Amino acid sequence: MQRSPRMRANFQIRTRGRGMGRTLGLIAGSGGLPLEVAAAAREQGVEVAVVAIEEHTDPAIAELASRGTCWIRVGELGRLIRALQEQAVDEVILAGAVAKRGALRDPSQLGLDARALAVMARLKDRGDDALLRAVAAELESEGLTVVASTRYLQDRLTRLGRLAGPTPTPVVESDLALGLRVAKGLGTHDVGQSAVVKQGTVLAVEAVEGTDAMMRRAAALGGAGAVLVKAAKPGQDLRFDVPAIGLQTVELARRCELLAIGLEADRTLVLDRARTLAEAERQQLAVIGLRLEQG
Amino acid sequence: MQRSPRMRANFQIRTRGRGMGRTLGLIAGSGGLPLEVAAAAREQGVEVAVVAIEEHTDPAIAELASRGTCWIRVGELGRLIRALQEQAVDEVILAGAVAKRGALRDPSQLGLDARALAVMARLKDRGDDALLRAVAAELESEGLTVVASTRYLQDRLTRLGRLAGPTPTPVVESDLALGLRVAKGLGTHDVGQSAVVKQGTVLAVEAVEGTDAMMRRAAALGGAGAVLVKAAKPGQDLRFDVPAIGLQTVELARRCELLAIGLEADRTLVLDRARTLAEAERQQLAVIGLRLEQG
Repeated sequence: MQRSPRMRANFQIRTRGRGMGRTLGLIAGSGGLPLEVAAAAREQGVEVAVVAIEEHTDPAIAELASRGTCWIRVGELGRLIRALQEQAVDEVILAGAVAKRGALRDPSQLGLDARALAVMARLKDRGDDALLRAVAAELESEGLTVVASTRYLQDRLTRLGRLAGPTPTPVVESDLALGLRVAKGLGTHDVGQSAVVKQGTVLAVEAVEGTDAMMRRAAALGGAGAVLVKAAKPGQDLRFDVPAIGLQTVELARRCELLAIGLEADRTLVLDRARTLAEAERQQLAVIGLRLEQG
Repeated sequence: MQRSPRMRANFQIRTRGRGMGRTLGLIAGSGGLPLEVAAAAREQGVEVAVVAIEEHTDPAIAELASRGTCWIRVGELGRLIRALQEQAVDEVILAGAVAKRGALRDPSQLGLDARALAVMARLKDRGDDALLRAVAAELESEGLTVVASTRYLQDRLTRLGRLAGPTPTPVVESDLALGLRVAKGLGTHDVGQSAVVKQGTVLAVEAVEGTDAMMRRAAALGGAGAVLVKAAKPGQDLRFDVPAIGLQTVELARRCELLAIGLEADRTLVLDRARTLAEAERQQLAVIGLRLEQG
């Protein structure tokens, strides 16, 4: 976070050999997901123009942005739209979180521009999805097409069954199933998407604090032997937010002495997959793709 | 909590004038609810024999126990049953929480007796309700009748509408409605029963940490201006656990700068009602009885 550049620059186009292909406009929030999207798109022959957010986006994104990176502040919706239009992008993907904590305490510190203020004024519900849906609507009103963040990630989505680590015991299996039901239940109301369960007791559920803080709280309350489950929201707009874990999650799971991580199959992602699963394997942490039972 | 007596005594019967009436066996956990139940039963002419739990029950319960108080340790299920049988109680009420934190970290520290161990061994799901249901079944297998904790509280249950403080603004009203939907949604899975919402964002939802810790977390994340909502679980077994607030909750709401507390009508309780609502009024904290909209 602290590594984001101080100087704000407009797009600096790197001239490369190809450039004649399709161009993706990637609005990159925090975490590893934007990197994953950019890498996957590039592998599939798509040019990538990035709009990155100061103090949020991992600067490593610049390496993957074949059509350059434009840094904006979090509230600059007008500038965001102009940047995408200047690049004449064919489609737009929103990927990665934009933490709302500061905004909830003091919206003025966001420095919302006129366009962002107009969007906020129209919103009643300010859950993550509602905010993203409003931003997407604003982009589409300008003729920009917002597509699913999973568009280039199809073969990287979590599959059903064991991905790493030991086969779960019946207790762990039952905890994973309960965690999935709770995580999906929360998602119905656009709250969090994660829960920690130990031996039939739901230790913690996630809201604004984020998955990491929730895991630490659960460990403090319940000690070793719990499981973490992440799921997508039911009926989630796939243009936003693929729930994901990565190396950091696996490392934190070790410190919290978790037995397993459950991920909803087809709708979640393991970032930096090979390294993350290898580390889970090394730790004997089970990583399991789950699906909600019907009925 | 620290005030609970060190010495463990069997029932010490106070001989009083009446004693010929109905006798309630009250299993008293922590918090103000057992005091409220005992006081209400006494007002309605019922004798009260209390089984109190060391390090959990407020010792003030002894003042309300017309047929004496028997102190047990939390894992002594066999002793609990014998105490109720010795008193020849006509009915049993379970009231007040028994914190499970220690138990989740290290079940052995509970000092479960043979009977409690047998019950635990049969349980897969160890949510609050599942545990209480198992204990109730064990009591009933001994011919004891467990009745609703609300049996003597009918005229104290929260009613619909404003109980204290200013009339909510439309934003606060909308936050209260969202909080109620989330709290009810959680309850479906026997998780918590409370949520904190600010301007359409769910800041925190409660699991094992308890309402107070959840409120503090929400305040740290989202600052002033949020609302707390407490609700009963859908289809909740009314023999267990009436969600309640009291003076402490109102005091913490002040420190967290909440605007309102929403309580599900007919299924929650304001403990020490007159003082608690007067304090809310003094603070200009709205206290509102809510009901889930159908459909």
